[in-house]
Formats: sequence, C-alpha cells, structure tokens
Amino acid sequence: MIRVTVWNEYRHEKHDSKIAEVYPEGIHGAIANYLKQDQELEVRTATLDEEDHGLTDEVLNNTDVLIWWGHVAHHEVRDDIVEKIHKRVLCGMGFIALHSAHLSKPFVRLMGTSCTLKWREIGENERLWVVEPSHPIAEGIGEYIDIEHEEMYGERFDIPAPDTLVFIGWFKGGEVFRSGCCYHRGNGKVFYFQPGHESFPIYYNPDILRIIKNAVKWARPIKMLSELTCPNVEPLEKV
Amino acid sequence: MIRVTVWNEYRHEKHDSKIAEVYPEGIHGAIANYLKQDQELEVRTATLDEEDHGLTDEVLNNTDVLIWWGHVAHHEVRDDIVEKIHKRVLCGMGFIALHSAHLSKPFVRLMGTSCTLKWREIGENERLWVVEPSHPIAEGIGEYIDIEHEEMYGERFDIPAPDTLVFIGWFKGGEVFRSGCCYHRGNGKVFYFQPGHESFPIYYNPDILRIIKNAVKWARPIKMLSELTCPNVEPLEKV
Amino acid sequence: MIRVTVWNEYRHEKHDSKIAEVYPEGIHGAIANYLKQDQELEVRTATLDEEDHGLTDEVLNNTDVLIWWGHVAHHEVRDDIVEKIHKRVLCGMGFIALHSAHLSKPFVRLMGTSCTLKWREIGENERLWVVEPSHPIAEGIGEYIDIEHEEMYGERFDIPAPDTLVFIGWFKGGEVFRSGCCYHRGNGKVFYFQPGHESFPIYYNPDILRIIKNAVKWARPIKMLSELTCPNVEPLEKV
Amino acid sequence: MIRVTVWNEYRHEKHDSKIAEVYPEGIHGAIANYLKQDQELEVRTATLDEEDHGLTDEVLNNTDVLIWWGHVAHHEVRDDIVEKIHKRVLCGMGFIALHSAHLSKPFVRLMGTSCTLKWREIGENERLWVVEPSHPIAEGIGEYIDIEHEEMYGERFDIPAPDTLVFIGWFKGGEVFRSGCCYHRGNGKVFYFQPGHESFPIYYNPDILRIIKNAVKWARPIKMLSELTCPNVEPLEKV
Repeated sequence: MIRVTVWNEYRHEKHDSKIAEVYPEGIHGAIANYLKQDQELEVRTATLDEEDHGLTDEVLNNTDVLIWWGHVAHHEVRDDIVEKIHKRVLCGMGFIALHSAHLSKPFVRLMGTSCTLKWREIGENERLWVVEPSHPIAEGIGEYIDIEHEEMYGERFDIPAPDTLVFIGWFKGGEVFRSGCCYHRGNGKVFYFQPGHESFPIYYNPDILRIIKNAVKWARPIKMLSELTCPNVEPLEKV
Repeated sequence: MIRVTVWNEYRHEKHDSKIAEVYPEGIHGAIANYLKQDQELEVRTATLDEEDHGLTDEVLNNTDVLIWWGHVAHHEVRDDIVEKIHKRVLCGMGFIALHSAHLSKPFVRLMGTSCTLKWREIGENERLWVVEPSHPIAEGIGEYIDIEHEEMYGERFDIPAPDTLVFIGWFKGGEVFRSGCCYHRGNGKVFYFQPGHESFPIYYNPDILRIIKNAVKWARPIKMLSELTCPNVEPLEKV
Repeated sequence: MIRVTVWNEYRHEKHDSKIAEVYPEGIHGAIANYLKQDQELEVRTATLDEEDHGLTDEVLNNTDVLIWWGHVAHHEVRDDIVEKIHKRVLCGMGFIALHSAHLSKPFVRLMGTSCTLKWREIGENERLWVVEPSHPIAEGIGEYIDIEHEEMYGERFDIPAPDTLVFIGWFKGGEVFRSGCCYHRGNGKVFYFQPGHESFPIYYNPDILRIIKNAVKWARPIKMLSELTCPNVEPLEKV
Repeated sequence: MIRVTVWNEYRHEKHDSKIAEVYPEGIHGAIANYLKQDQELEVRTATLDEEDHGLTDEVLNNTDVLIWWGHVAHHEVRDDIVEKIHKRVLCGMGFIALHSAHLSKPFVRLMGTSCTLKWREIGENERLWVVEPSHPIAEGIGEYIDIEHEEMYGERFDIPAPDTLVFIGWFKGGEVFRSGCCYHRGNGKVFYFQPGHESFPIYYNPDILRIIKNAVKWARPIKMLSELTCPNVEPLEKV
C-alpha cells in the first residue's frame, strides 16, 4: 500500500467560477478521485488554507508520496512546513511537482536552481513525446500525447539535468520543454511533470492521469530514514 | 583571462599553531600561490573575517570562478552573501567546493540535498581513482593518486548523482567516496573535490593542485546572465 | 508474471570438481532456484552447450529478462544469437550481466566500449556500498554488503557512465569499482552487477540474490516493440 | 594544436548537380574551410572513395578529432576501418557524428543501440534550443538557432541517454529531437549533432559552424591510450 497525499493550493477553484466549473472538486479532487480507483494506493488530500496547510507532522509522517500543485500562492506556504517536506523527501518520501509547481518552495529547494522558464498562456496545442519508453513512468503511453489546449512552458528551463528525461514537450508556438523529469534526491525520488493548468481540463486526460499514477508508484520510498546524520565512524578495517 | 577568487574560512590557521605550520599563508594562500603561476588566471583571495567576507558585490561581479574552503564556521557565513553567491552561480560563475565545504551554505543550497556523509579523522591512506579519464579535470593525472594521510569521507554521500563522476576515493579503513563530482547548475558549473584537510599538506600535492586548476578552467563561465527571469513570451510561430 | 531466463556458460562447473562442489547445479541452478521462490517470476535456464545455446527464437521471444553468466567461452557464443539477443533487448527485454559477463558479447555490444577492467584473483575481501539507496535495485539492502572472498575487479572499468550508479565496490587490495550499473538501452534495460565468481559461493549470499531479484523486477519490459524501424512519417501539423 | 580530420561520404555532391551547387567543394570542404581559419586547428579531409577511405593508419593515428558525414553509403565503409576508428575513439580520439551519420557504422557501434529515428524530407523549419547553456559546445550561441529548411529528424531517437543533452530541436511539423548529444566513451568523447543535410546550405550557417568548432575543442583527447587492456594486477595494499 502506497500512501499518497495530493496537495493543492486550491485558490483558483474557489475564486474563479470558470475554473471552478473545470475542477468543481478542485484539482486535488480530480487527481485524488482517479488515484483512489487503484487498490494499491491510499489517497488523501490537503490544501493551503487548512491548518498547517493540511500537512501536520502526522500527515507528513504517514505520506509515502506527496503530489504538489501550486501557482499564485507559493509565497504563502510556510517555511517551517517547507523545511519538513524537504527533510521528509531526503529521508525517502516521493515528491511529484505538477505544472506551475516548478516555482513552488519545496521543488525549488530540492533542485537548487531558479527553476525559471518561458511561458505563454494562449491555450495552444502541446504534443508530449516519450523519449525514454523503458521508464516505468511511460508505461501504457503511446509514442506521444496530444494536448489540445495548454499553457506554454518553454526552454530554457533552469533545472539540473534530470537523472532521467522521460518526456519532451512540443508547443505549436515554437518552443520545446523538458516536460517529464526524474530525480533521485537524498533517499527520495522527485518527478516534475509539466502538463496541467487550472483553466484546462488536463487532469481528466486518461494519459496524463496514468502518468501521474505511474509516477506515484515509481516514487514510493525504497528505504525510509528516520533522520539525516553526518556520523563519525570507526574504521571497518585495520588501518 | 579567468578571474578566480579563492575563499577560505581562515580560522584553523589563525587559532591552531600546528595548522599554521602546515599553511603559514592559509589554505587560500597555498592554492592561490599555485594558481598565480598560470598566465591565464587572475587570482585573488577572500576570507570570512574580512568585511562582507571579502565578497563585496564588486568582487563577486568580477569573479568567474569561486573556490570555497570552509569547515568550523559555515554558520557564520551571512545569508545575504550566500544568496548573492547562489545567484551568481546560476548566472554563470563557476563554483569549486573543497573538502569540508560539502556542508558550506552555498554548496548545500546548490545541491538541494543534505550533503551529509560519514567521516573519521585518523589520517589514514586514501587512493583517488580516475573513473572518467576523458574529462578535462583529469588531464595530466595518472590512473590514481595516492594520498598518504587523509581524513576519511565515506558513502553514502547525500548528493544528487553528479552529471559526471570523475574520481572515486578508496580509504584504507574500508570506505569509498564519490570524490570528484561535476554539476551544471543554472548557467554555472560546480565541482566538488573531496581531498584536503587543514592538518595535512594536501594542498601542496602537485596532482591535487593540478586538478583544482583543471577544474577552474572547466568551470569558467560560458554564457553569463545578468539576471534570472521567468518571461512571458510571444509565440515564435503562428498558432 | 515476469518470464526470466537464467543463462550460464556452464563449463567451470562441469570441468572442475572444486567448482562443481560450490555449484552442484551450476551457477544458473543456484540463481534459478532462488528466483523460483518468487510467485511473480516464471524461471527457466539455458546453457552454452545446449542447441542454440538454449536460446531458440521461441525461448528468446518468451523471455522478459535474460540473466547472463559467462567467462571462459565468450567467443563460443554464436554471433547470430548475439544479434538476436541484442535486438530483443533494444525491443524491450531486460538484460542482467553478472560478474565476468562484462566481456560477454551481448554486454559489450550493448555498451559500445571495450568493457575492460583490472582484475586479481586472490579471494580478497570486498565491501559493496550502496550509493543510490532510493533505487529499487537496492531495496532491502543495508548500507553495505561484506563479501568475504571475491575476485577483484578494479577501475578504470571502460563502460559508459551508468544512467544510475547504485553500488560501488571497495577491495582490500586498494581498488574501487562501479559494481552496480543501470542502463536504458533501446526499449530495454540493462544491469551490470560485479559480484560473483565461479569459485566462491557468492550466488548463495541472500543480499546478492535479493539484488539480482530486484534487478529482474526493475528490468521487466515496459513497452515491447516487435521490430526496430526508421520510418518516414507525415507531418502531424500543417507546415 | 588539435588535428582534425573531416570525413565525408562525398557521393551526393558528385552525383547530383543540385547538391554540387550547394556544396561545390563537398560537405567536407565547407566544414574544413571554416575550421582552417582557427589557428589552434590543423585540418585535413578524407572521403569514402579514397584508398582506405582516406583513413590509413597514418591518418588515424594522427587524428585527434574525427568528424563524420555519411548517408547513402554507410554499408560501403569497410568493417576493418570501422574497427580501427572504434578502437581509436576508445583510446581517446574525439568523434563528431553529423546528421545522417546517426546510422553510420562507427556511431552505431559506439552507441550500442539501433540509432533509429523518424524522418521526413520536406524542408520544414527547425528551431534548435539550447538546454545546457553552460556547456562549452554552446559557447557563442544565443537561446536558439533558426534553421529555415531542414530535414525533420524526430523522436524517439534510439540512443543511450546522453551524458549531456545540449540542444533540443523543434520541428514545424510537430516533432522534437535530441539534436546535440555528448557522450564519454572509453577515453574518447563523442558528439552527435543533428542539423545538416546535403540539399540545404546548413554547413555555411555561422552558428552551426561555430557549434562544430566548439565540439572539436571539447572533444580533443585528454589522455590517449596506446591500447585497450584488461590487466591482471598485483594488490596495492597488503591483503
């Protein structure tokens, strides 16, 4: 059983009726409803405006994989909670950053770079190409996915070169993007996935959902540490 | 011409006469004196107790590659200066972290992980093996370097997998270590190099010095940005 | 269900009574007997002296992961069968090369390098360190594995830098080795694992067996191609 | 001084007057003429129909970096010469494969994969994006290069994930491509660069030429071996 927490900023959906129409249960709801259909996953949600952003110690300590969606309120996420998330990832928790979470505090901190990119919001067409078909995150996906309307995210994307680059996005307006990026960080695993925007129904697309589910399974903890230490050790051999 | 700044915490050498004997001009002095012999390099030094740690805007903005040695006073390095260093690396400056700088603020921030490791200070033998001989940082180095007395740094070293792993260290007491690690971060390049300790004369070893010089040349800026931006852009093609 | 074929040269065990004592059912038998205990695996064996080396089209086309052990008779493996194995890996089959299989024809062909290394056969101690604990191949393994007697394999190992380096070996005689190396090749996945020798009972060590089983599961095909093509395609967009 | 040999199949230019108009001195001539302007480079050319394809032992042993262009006659390249090129790269020579050389014998052998891709020859627009601006191969290049008419090469490109991915191509017809790929192989370095076709004047584009020159400098040998060995060695430490 993998314990998943789907975290969402959950502001657009509350303050913009058009977005609420697209995601009546919130982006977190759309993703969680899908993941809950998988018997191997135990799914809960958490949002910014809950106490401790819904991420109490009890929740974090019982989360194997944390999915993160944020956009307009990155700066409102409390630093002490970012600190706990960061430590929990280094101890082994998986972390999946979706779309505009490229500028979220936990993701930026894990990357160590600015995570800046080019962007444009005219709802153009994206085509998401699989470049590493043997990766489990690409399981069940064809050669590419067509996304009819998408916000453009373009290179250069200021991230560390991914340990594995699984998807590259093509945008009609002329840009490319490293859209599916896998990282090992500490004892944890991190996946950045570009598709998804509050005003397009991308998180109902079966291929996109399948990729998120695949990423959850890939990112499950392999070995969970209780703390990060820098120990002074005795020699194992006679010196 | 590559403009190098060698930064040193410079505390051990001032407070411990045995260490002062090993490095009478400080660790920064030993490294700078060697680098100055190269006509392509313009070398200066800076230390913690200088104003602004010797890293004023004027100095940083005229530094192509920053070499960093720190150990007991990582926490005394001012956060606003760390912020400037971090930004300057992402804009293109090279950064070379030596030995105990694995826990320095700028390095930890660039890595995004805890950078913890195992350690032991009994002066045992290290053998540094070249695993990527085609990398320019290994130029002029044989199959391995023998270091008679070294502080042991052992795995697991909690770093992102390096873009290129150039050296692996063998320690007599039974450990191994990823001792020479190259990273691209932002528009800058980062090299972590494990050998070197305040109480051993490692920064006089010709092979070690050669590697540091090679690293400086490898880490020179290729394209320097003036700022990090996340621009909204017009389409390049008709959509 | 993952269909595994354990291939062994199976010469040492037939011609040397001491080795036969260590592996009375052959190295393939020792590994297969262990893997068979896992309900998710369907295991068969094949050896060099069988017809078509036991690797008929029917066998290969029904193999998801091929484990390979060879040493003294690499050159006797028929090129047409190597060709088929190579193609099958690029189409999606997993391939696990054990120990002296570093010079086997299928592995060398997949790597594109000489795969040479240093070696010494005095039965010294090896300590295998986990450097990427979040990789599924390291699941269930502690910080390191002690192997009392092992043939030394030392750097420089002439392989492409692995996509993921999971284990580094320490040898008492003074060498290090990239002992656990993961690769994506074509639609398939490849794992090289250094431990194991015909005269030492390494393939009974529970940790070594666990790693082999983990590798089988990691290397299962994600998307199997029927052939490798280089197609001329129509534009997907109006040009 | 870096000794460069520019190798060209040189068939299209001889047999097709339209192509001869584009490259009156051959593709090799166009590239060599540019490189010769650099004082650090000593440049010669060689072509398929010369004796030994112009690649005698004397030529190969005095080549630091070999540039390769081939298309319709890959199969005519003699296997014994491919063998020598392959060995020379593993010993330290740089190898730059241009455009349709993705299916050339030396490149395919170095990669170990099928190197297949999708293609279309309608002369559509390509935009080549820099994704690793700190790499020396990108020196002097802006954010992207516009190529007005190009043969489309599209994913999935069956190559090993590059050690460094420097460029990603965008094609108007809807595809993306990993267009600039760096590899360490043996003691040598390999760069694959997609732009370039016999019927378009791409090898006169200043940015494309600059990248090829940058690649030559990056690929210069760091440590040249005289042979590839697998030595039995004595312990360096008491066992």
